[in-house]
Amino acid sequence: MTGMLTIAGLGPGDEALVTPEVSAALADATDVVGYAPYVSRIAAREGLVLHASDNRQELQRAAEAMRLAAEGRRVVVVSSGDPGVFAMASAVFEVLEASPQSQGLGIRVLPGVTAMLAAAARAGAPLGHDFCAINLSDNLKPWPAIETRLRLAAEADFAIALYNPRSASRPEGFARALDVLKQAGCGDRIAIFAHAVTTAEERIDALPLQDARPEMADMRTLVIVCNSTTRRCGRWIYAPRRVS
Amino acid sequence: MTGMLTIAGLGPGDEALVTPEVSAALADATDVVGYAPYVSRIAAREGLVLHASDNRQELQRAAEAMRLAAEGRRVVVVSSGDPGVFAMASAVFEVLEASPQSQGLGIRVLPGVTAMLAAAARAGAPLGHDFCAINLSDNLKPWPAIETRLRLAAEADFAIALYNPRSASRPEGFARALDVLKQAGCGDRIAIFAHAVTTAEERIDALPLQDARPEMADMRTLVIVCNSTTRRCGRWIYAPRRVS
Repeated sequence: MTGMLTIAGLGPGDEALVTPEVSAALADATDVVGYAPYVSRIAAREGLVLHASDNRQELQRAAEAMRLAAEGRRVVVVSSGDPGVFAMASAVFEVLEASPQSQGLGIRVLPGVTAMLAAAARAGAPLGHDFCAINLSDNLKPWPAIETRLRLAAEADFAIALYNPRSASRPEGFARALDVLKQAGCGDRIAIFAHAVTTAEERIDALPLQDARPEMADMRTLVIVCNSTTRRCGRWIYAPRRVS
Repeated sequence: MTGMLTIAGLGPGDEALVTPEVSAALADATDVVGYAPYVSRIAAREGLVLHASDNRQELQRAAEAMRLAAEGRRVVVVSSGDPGVFAMASAVFEVLEASPQSQGLGIRVLPGVTAMLAAAARAGAPLGHDFCAINLSDNLKPWPAIETRLRLAAEADFAIALYNPRSASRPEGFARALDVLKQAGCGDRIAIFAHAVTTAEERIDALPLQDARPEMADMRTLVIVCNSTTRRCGRWIYAPRRVS
């Protein structure tokens, strides 16, 4: 039996957004490895072992998945959204680079619908013009680097998708991010708060950035700060294609 | 019969990357409207009318779709990738805003796997850290705005996904973009050229940006200029999560 390590994205929550490619990989798996809330999305069945782990256990999780695949098992590491966007793919490659004995292992990455695309679709088309994605978690990067990127993104007039805006362990960062963006002249821009997008708890709010309050976001929220030309049309919010 | 206008993304090319949500919308449609190469991906069946149009006909296409939906038909406007990323969603909302009589129409946007996610998955995880997406077509925005964004994106050390890098009608822009990025100090960064990703013609090349030649890209190519910390591990290219 030849092992295989598949790094797959489950999309933002709705099962109708899981690609057939990922569904096929899960149907063929012997082991699913991931953060507990994502593993809980996988139906139990005979012959499938579910390995759920805590948050911030990315490297241990990746190492466990690699060990299982080296034993000949067909392992799927699951992330929500897309596995390559602030998710497990980078962690797996970090472990792979530190494990020369694993470098012949069969590995594949299966993309998914990342949260900002689902949030944008619900709101209209706020990512219809140039945009960026910034992870507001400063667990693995210094906060000043985040502030610099926010300022440059504002100056570039990118729409700005903010991932992981706020958690219990980092309650202050998002408030600072909002201040940085206001100081950078983005107060009039539309801010979209997409909570638990495509799930039963979905809630989408939009308001001028200057009226946004930090407590509007949590770790299940994806925030899009629209670019300066973004408009409302009825309930829809969209970035026109043409800028002058 | 109540009309519905659905704006859907078909993903980058592989049918296994079309979400079940989009497949269901297509199965229920009376009309599919889009750029001819994307409409050609939809299987003909009784009761379905396919409306294929030329490139750069986005507004006419959106208006036609809206007219059909207003007549009570179930219309799906198809884009490749995600419809909200440099694709049809913004064009539909532009037409909607100019058509007050259409603003009660039922509209929904169904996200898809956009090209940069599929390209990143094939290469490894080059979008595992903060990144941006820039459309290099200057049909609808002035070229100096593109150059400014490229410089700011380089300064922010974003990975940079370049959509529509080069076409027969715009052969020069991509060469200038490469020059701007080299002048901005990105010569040593890894550039990934993902051609026709997930299709039978897929080809992925990666090399230092300073060695990249403009003719390596065409309109079916998605280019990712990696951030400065991105590394190779065997055949894989990935952005480590941690930066100092």
